[in-house]
Amino acid sequence: MHPITDILLLLFVMYVAALLGGELALCLRLPAVVGEIVAGCVLGPSVLGWIGSASIASGTPVDMLAEVGVILLLFSVGLETSLADLKAVGGHALAVGVLGVITPFVMASTWAHGLGLAWAHSMFVAAAFVATSAGITARVLQELGVLGRREARIILGAAVIDDILAMLLLGIVTAMQGHGEVSLWPLLGTFAGAVGFVAVIGLGGSMMMRRGSGWLDAPQNPLSPLAITLAMCLGLAWLSTRFHLAAIIGAFLAGMVAAETRQRGELARSTSPLLAFLTPFFFVVTGARVDLGNLADAHGLAMLAMALAIAIVSKVVGGFLGAISLGKTSALIVGVGMVPRGEVGVVIASLGLATGLLDSTLYSVIVGMSILSSIATPPALAWMFRSQRASAEQPATSP
Amino acid sequence: MHPITDILLLLFVMYVAALLGGELALCLRLPAVVGEIVAGCVLGPSVLGWIGSASIASGTPVDMLAEVGVILLLFSVGLETSLADLKAVGGHALAVGVLGVITPFVMASTWAHGLGLAWAHSMFVAAAFVATSAGITARVLQELGVLGRREARIILGAAVIDDILAMLLLGIVTAMQGHGEVSLWPLLGTFAGAVGFVAVIGLGGSMMMRRGSGWLDAPQNPLSPLAITLAMCLGLAWLSTRFHLAAIIGAFLAGMVAAETRQRGELARSTSPLLAFLTPFFFVVTGARVDLGNLADAHGLAMLAMALAIAIVSKVVGGFLGAISLGKTSALIVGVGMVPRGEVGVVIASLGLATGLLDSTLYSVIVGMSILSSIATPPALAWMFRSQRASAEQPATSP
Repeated sequence: MHPITDILLLLFVMYVAALLGGELALCLRLPAVVGEIVAGCVLGPSVLGWIGSASIASGTPVDMLAEVGVILLLFSVGLETSLADLKAVGGHALAVGVLGVITPFVMASTWAHGLGLAWAHSMFVAAAFVATSAGITARVLQELGVLGRREARIILGAAVIDDILAMLLLGIVTAMQGHGEVSLWPLLGTFAGAVGFVAVIGLGGSMMMRRGSGWLDAPQNPLSPLAITLAMCLGLAWLSTRFHLAAIIGAFLAGMVAAETRQRGELARSTSPLLAFLTPFFFVVTGARVDLGNLADAHGLAMLAMALAIAIVSKVVGGFLGAISLGKTSALIVGVGMVPRGEVGVVIASLGLATGLLDSTLYSVIVGMSILSSIATPPALAWMFRSQRASAEQPATSP
Repeated sequence: MHPITDILLLLFVMYVAALLGGELALCLRLPAVVGEIVAGCVLGPSVLGWIGSASIASGTPVDMLAEVGVILLLFSVGLETSLADLKAVGGHALAVGVLGVITPFVMASTWAHGLGLAWAHSMFVAAAFVATSAGITARVLQELGVLGRREARIILGAAVIDDILAMLLLGIVTAMQGHGEVSLWPLLGTFAGAVGFVAVIGLGGSMMMRRGSGWLDAPQNPLSPLAITLAMCLGLAWLSTRFHLAAIIGAFLAGMVAAETRQRGELARSTSPLLAFLTPFFFVVTGARVDLGNLADAHGLAMLAMALAIAIVSKVVGGFLGAISLGKTSALIVGVGMVPRGEVGVVIASLGLATGLLDSTLYSVIVGMSILSSIATPPALAWMFRSQRASAEQPATSP
């Protein structure tokens, strides 16, 4: 009687799989998010096929629910990050963001050129190696309870800068595919717009909220502080896409602004059930998008291994160099935290497939790289934070 | 870059409109839900046209979000209703449910036959007058804080019975449209299945949870009681559609089962942010589905007025007679609480339009009746509960 019936079954299966996968991961001392991604991969077309690729394609109901889930996740991460926290790490975040874009871009374009592609074309491929997906790292940092740590703040700040630069870069390389000419001024305008958006919302919004947030409690609706900040989250998520940034950047800014209110604690408590219900869909969908079939032959596997190595090494090196003044251990944590490409790489790859810039193998390689980098990061990050904590507890090795 | 961008804007606009509408309604001493429905109507195709009918059609992302919202609403209503509460009002609920189906069915088929339709055809039209939409009444009862009252429990119990009978009736009248023959046994099988489903889940599930619910806390996931009961809610919502019942009946049962756990209080606290975020979408979508254009001429308006009168009078009379032993005031409250048809009427009307049983005027009349009955009920119910409370505070008039 209602097409919603099939979707309900799918949501039920995805949610149960996420719970089981997450629980299993926790038992193995891995972050729950790893289990959720793997659960998605198992349910997806590559293994069981219970989640068809059509039902999680871009713009479908399940995709939208997943997107709302990651938006709320970044909102709640922003809620744990105030402007003062980010300002304190501003210089490092800038260095990590910039180096974390340049290194993968140079390495990946050289690799793609080595595969026989023209430079302009290679640079498009390289653009898919650039953008860090903050969602996965943010979730791991949240699960580990280390969002207050300096490294975590640098990673989050760098992810915002990274997204701005990646957007600029994608604009340049897409323009280069056409007439071979890149018109500088429109691109600079877009860049200035994105920087201005982040600055105005981040600084202006935080300042406004610090001045007083009693008005959030003024409406008769008893949950008005939550409702108003969620409205702001949806609005800024949309607005940031108008400035060519990912929706999650706007959601993160909304959370940061909400972190300046005196209702911060109440907001953090009430967003956690929202995350418990909605974010698992995002990670299951991410996992279900892995198509192992396309990578089953030796050639595909070798290309994937190479792409993955470049993706990991280039981000770790870029992040490490940017944060080296914090000491080697912290710099390495920052570098590893920047590794996941997640949905941003997948989106660029889809764009390439649609415009004919990528063939289906290169597409699968980039999608595989994006997703494997996301699966590999959480356990590595968890392990590093735990061993850093363990060594900090031994006075001999602490600074 | 992503079709989700447009949906995000739509969600933002809908959510803000719901907040403003809800707040305005509260200021006018009306339930917030009235403001949310009216906000949807204003944003919808009839007035501003900001929400296109294609973007809220069945199976779209926004429709799914709305559906998830009403499912969570009924889950939370179930959470405030335990099996013992329902058992105490079982006899009344049965009488209200049965009479509340027979009266509208008889009145509406007579009316449709009077319009010139054949009896079989008229009975199909009448089926759209039968099913109460528990969502709207439940939300009003929750807003007024009267879910613990006897009348509220009778309404909720009767809504479950009502849905079972409406399902049976729709099966019969749909079968009658074909060869004119109705095969009794398959229908009785379906009926028995639905009754069995409600009994097994309601009784069995509650008994299981009463025996012990410590296992809900066993997983390492700190929000596991919420996550597990939400999974159960999605699963039962889907399963109830397999037994030809509305998804919200399954969600209500899931909430009722969860109400027997010792984590009940914690669950109620953590579902309220979920409702604050998701249920407004359901009510805005309900409002946006009103198409005033189809009813702009005198003939259409007259038909609508008649249909609405039948819809209201027949349910009030049916409910009143079923609950008369509670006293006139309470019986009237129960009758009024059964009035909203909401989405069930809309779904039956869509089915009729698709199969050619309804022309576009009759379709608009039934949709208009379903939605207006939903808009009219909340203020009436709120007023009645408040004046009952006021008179109860004067010892002279209290029983």
